Amino acid sequence: MDIALLQQRLRTFANDRGWEPYLTPKNLAMAMVVEAAELVEIFQWKTAEESLALDDATRTHLGEEISDVLMYLLQIADRSGVDVASAVERKLALNAIKYPAGLPASKTV
Amino acid sequence: MDIALLQQRLRTFANDRGWEPYLTPKNLAMAMVVEAAELVEIFQWKTAEESLALDDATRTHLGEEISDVLMYLLQIADRSGVDVASAVERKLALNAIKYPAGLPASKTV
Amino acid sequence: MDIALLQQRLRTFANDRGWEPYLTPKNLAMAMVVEAAELVEIFQWKTAEESLALDDATRTHLGEEISDVLMYLLQIADRSGVDVASAVERKLALNAIKYPAGLPASKTV
Amino acid sequence: MDIALLQQRLRTFANDRGWEPYLTPKNLAMAMVVEAAELVEIFQWKTAEESLALDDATRTHLGEEISDVLMYLLQIADRSGVDVASAVERKLALNAIKYPAGLPASKTV
Repeated sequence: MDIALLQQRLRTFANDRGWEPYLTPKNLAMAMVVEAAELVEIFQWKTAEESLALDDATRTHLGEEISDVLMYLLQIADRSGVDVASAVERKLALNAIKYPAGLPASKTV
Repeated sequence: MDIALLQQRLRTFANDRGWEPYLTPKNLAMAMVVEAAELVEIFQWKTAEESLALDDATRTHLGEEISDVLMYLLQIADRSGVDVASAVERKLALNAIKYPAGLPASKTV
Repeated sequence: MDIALLQQRLRTFANDRGWEPYLTPKNLAMAMVVEAAELVEIFQWKTAEESLALDDATRTHLGEEISDVLMYLLQIADRSGVDVASAVERKLALNAIKYPAGLPASKTV
Repeated sequence: MDIALLQQRLRTFANDRGWEPYLTPKNLAMAMVVEAAELVEIFQWKTAEESLALDDATRTHLGEEISDVLMYLLQIADRSGVDVASAVERKLALNAIKYPAGLPASKTV
């Protein structure tokens, strides 16, 4: 998956529909959390075990919600000048410092 | 950014810390929406215009929150057997049907 | 609105439908954030001004989402042994210390 | 807990700090979902059982997050002209129709 290309396709899709005025980072953040919650909804009444053993229809539905969150996330980055790959590398390095390996999981999770 | 490689790195990171028992899709969905809301928090008191003109410190902060949401999203996909690239292509095709081009934006957004 | 009475009615409603096993605080927290996001969805593409001038149908819809969030919130409190009225008084006192009056709004909001 | 009185106190608190320009329903909805997610964060790594047996410190923390969500919810209602008590009664009646008693819980939850 080519992030920059996907961002370009999302930009074209929005432009073709006249959506640019709506797609401020503020509004996109709201739309993103709405989709994030739709993903949560899939799991809200499931046990931990059930969440690990989804049937095909639920897995397909989950794929749609993952895609929706991801697409809004990439649009937020695109319109805010955030380079996603660099930001992820930087955050992975910060996490490695914040959560040293070798401690009990209950202390770090 | 190589999605499969990043998912592998996140798996190793979690395994090295003994986090696997915590990382059910249900729990990861909760963690993901928490990070999504931390991203929303950046914009909550900003005007639409301010959200389009972030300073460098805020852009860096935004990059961290985008990364956090993305990393949980990829872990959800990994542990649920969702192929992210295929799911995104499928959702883009569905969106092209759901939101035909050429209608007033106010009808489709 | 009598909070304790409403909590009693919600308990009876759930019991009559055999929902108790599902209504752990963890699951209720998930359901609550899903409803919170449905409330956010009402405003996601609206301008600040539009959000201040809702039409009747949208106001009715908003009332439904406010009710859904509130009802899950009261069930979380009920099942966790949190007294809502005391918790609110305590939080108001903490906020009065955290946000002293007389500072510029931009410093405290 | 007197809802109207609490809404009046929250209005005075905000006015004393010059916050009114920030407190549009759109912004308040964002702040509300941020607090809702902070409540979710309390439970994200807990099992269902652990979420039912909180220690005192966690219960106090939960009370703060419940209060934060509730206070934003009441401000949204106040600024949007939604009467909370009427909205809740209306929603309870709708739910009684939507979820008839006597069906298996798995069909209605």
